[in-house]
Amino acid sequence: MGRYRALTEAEAVEYVRKIPGLFTEGARLVSKEIGDGNLNLVFRIQEEGPSGKSVIIKQALPYARVVGESWPLTLDRARIESEAIRLEDQLCPGSVPKIYHYDQDLALTVMEDLSSYQVLRKGLIERRRYPHFARHIGRFLARTLFLTSDLALDPQEKKRRVAKFINPELCKITEDLVFTDPYYDAPTNSFNPLLRETIQAIWQNDALKLEVAKLKEKFLTQAQALIHGDLHTGSIMVTEEDTRVIDAEFAFYGPMGFDVGAVIANLLLNYAAQEVRIEDAGERERIQQYLLDTIEELWHVFAQEFKALWEKEGKEHFAAVPGYVDDYLLRVLQDAAGFAGCKMIRRVIGLAPVADLETIEDDFQRARAERLALAIGQALILERTRVQEISDLISRVLSAKAQELVK
Amino acid sequence: MGRYRALTEAEAVEYVRKIPGLFTEGARLVSKEIGDGNLNLVFRIQEEGPSGKSVIIKQALPYARVVGESWPLTLDRARIESEAIRLEDQLCPGSVPKIYHYDQDLALTVMEDLSSYQVLRKGLIERRRYPHFARHIGRFLARTLFLTSDLALDPQEKKRRVAKFINPELCKITEDLVFTDPYYDAPTNSFNPLLRETIQAIWQNDALKLEVAKLKEKFLTQAQALIHGDLHTGSIMVTEEDTRVIDAEFAFYGPMGFDVGAVIANLLLNYAAQEVRIEDAGERERIQQYLLDTIEELWHVFAQEFKALWEKEGKEHFAAVPGYVDDYLLRVLQDAAGFAGCKMIRRVIGLAPVADLETIEDDFQRARAERLALAIGQALILERTRVQEISDLISRVLSAKAQELVK
Repeated sequence: MGRYRALTEAEAVEYVRKIPGLFTEGARLVSKEIGDGNLNLVFRIQEEGPSGKSVIIKQALPYARVVGESWPLTLDRARIESEAIRLEDQLCPGSVPKIYHYDQDLALTVMEDLSSYQVLRKGLIERRRYPHFARHIGRFLARTLFLTSDLALDPQEKKRRVAKFINPELCKITEDLVFTDPYYDAPTNSFNPLLRETIQAIWQNDALKLEVAKLKEKFLTQAQALIHGDLHTGSIMVTEEDTRVIDAEFAFYGPMGFDVGAVIANLLLNYAAQEVRIEDAGERERIQQYLLDTIEELWHVFAQEFKALWEKEGKEHFAAVPGYVDDYLLRVLQDAAGFAGCKMIRRVIGLAPVADLETIEDDFQRARAERLALAIGQALILERTRVQEISDLISRVLSAKAQELVK
Repeated sequence: MGRYRALTEAEAVEYVRKIPGLFTEGARLVSKEIGDGNLNLVFRIQEEGPSGKSVIIKQALPYARVVGESWPLTLDRARIESEAIRLEDQLCPGSVPKIYHYDQDLALTVMEDLSSYQVLRKGLIERRRYPHFARHIGRFLARTLFLTSDLALDPQEKKRRVAKFINPELCKITEDLVFTDPYYDAPTNSFNPLLRETIQAIWQNDALKLEVAKLKEKFLTQAQALIHGDLHTGSIMVTEEDTRVIDAEFAFYGPMGFDVGAVIANLLLNYAAQEVRIEDAGERERIQQYLLDTIEELWHVFAQEFKALWEKEGKEHFAAVPGYVDDYLLRVLQDAAGFAGCKMIRRVIGLAPVADLETIEDDFQRARAERLALAIGQALILERTRVQEISDLISRVLSAKAQELVK
């Protein structure tokens, strides 16, 4: 591991001092470790006084912080993250934090501080609306996915990138926690005891498990585009005006639908949570409708931008064959539906819950929302190949909800 | 390129002398360059006298021999080939030539001489039958494909192998010559002028091109197993008793159906050629039936062996889910049908013809056989998703033939 050592708050200050162009000499800097994630150290370093200038240091630990040293984890993820963020910035300028410095030996990246932004998950829990979010994220998805695929790149260059972004350890986390553990009585699972019967029915549902097996297989084998790999609403920072995607360490060449589905899943997890979080029926309906509208809009923006890129930047010989772009997008949509379903289910049954549901204090109320999330998730997995347009996906959500709520 | 130089016949002799354990000191060795392929030098080095012992040196040239130095080609393919052969030998012992020595700098492999074997393509043209071939190749396909996939390997180990076998330049040859050039008026194409009208209809067939686009996409993106990548009947050496697979330089992580389809395509190209090569109707029917029976048998052996491995060696958590193995195999079969169709069409329209058809001297007779190959190829591509069993694939061949021959 060479020069590697985990920094202290004081060392973090000394480290950024040495990077030219960040702070003036002798600036009074305050350092605070603010990492609330599962895998890394995150330092916020701010200049005292009127400038208030600040940066973030994100440093990978050689183990998963959430579990401890017993779960070793490659430092190479810091390289993958910094390279993925730089690439995202190039392909969709301004969509990610600016990177100031990357240090391979210390497995750390110094980047723009987005403290003035809010984590989207938190904002959605607080029922905030972000009028530009759907457009920003739809465009981010279209540009980063299309422009890293064989559709836009020379296939030889694309293969070199596949090799560069091989990411076995982080992929394994997804393979286990999203696609495997929730479907049997795994020791890593953690769920509301009130759901035991519902969850046991899932463990015994062979039709569902067959479809999850196929989606897992796609995740394991389909090197379609450089995907973010962990694009939930905790990896998105927002303001009224702006949207930034963070935490790219899960990036690898995988199926486009996995990223699209991750965003949809997390909007729907919030949707399920609001079912019990909001007492007022009118307000509840308005917020839930906003979430469904956001899903529709982000898909439309994604599809439109994707088609425009196909038209302008498409390198594939067969790009002009009638029907190809529509067929391609339909398959991405169906994949997105299936992956969204898996991502919803894992947040209810698996190791890592989401705050949208987790912070509902009453167990019975929380169980209602969680059951709704499970019902929507299963419908999306089982019925994904019948989804022909985004409105079909929304219909499945509504009919799963209608069925669940009469139970 | 370090120590690399292309060997002469005399240097090849001196080279093998230095490898311990191959020949006795002072053995009188005769060297002959016998490469008839498109990419490499192949030396056969034999001891004079009663032992008659011999070896093959296969040396990669830094360009494609068929075109010349204007088409540079990576020497890394020699590494890929030697590693792939070693792996195939480990997974399916005795299915490939023994490797005695690999030299990275010289990009050469010293291996078992299979001069007593016949190239399967040549044997089939001569109407020979190989009673064990279907069983051997079905088993080879099942073992090499299953055992290099996520079904059998730890997904982390599999990803490391994906990176190791990234093979951009050789894949590009396939992407261009199999999946792209035959579908427009490419300068690399070469075909019987009598076929111009039939081929122009293919160039204008959008429904066909859409399906080829999807198959190409699968070839570009699906890292399912370490495939041989060029498994035509010229890459298979046979005797009455034995079968060996050679020429693994196209190996990479791709779709299983591509290898299965390559074998099927080349049996069907022979089938189409025999339609005009054999005058006697009874003999023709027997030979053609033998070829179709071989396809059925190799698939049944493949599927049976694959299922046995799934049962015994399957590491995938969902392996035991009812219906998964059958669904998996059905998708391999449908892929194989589509890829077989592409491989048939490219041998009629594209740069590299096959001797089965090419050696039919009469242009009109050859055109009849070639039209039959094109008709079968198109049917397999367009109707692949309706193939549910291998007998359905055979039915498509027969109905394409019936339709073509009444024209």
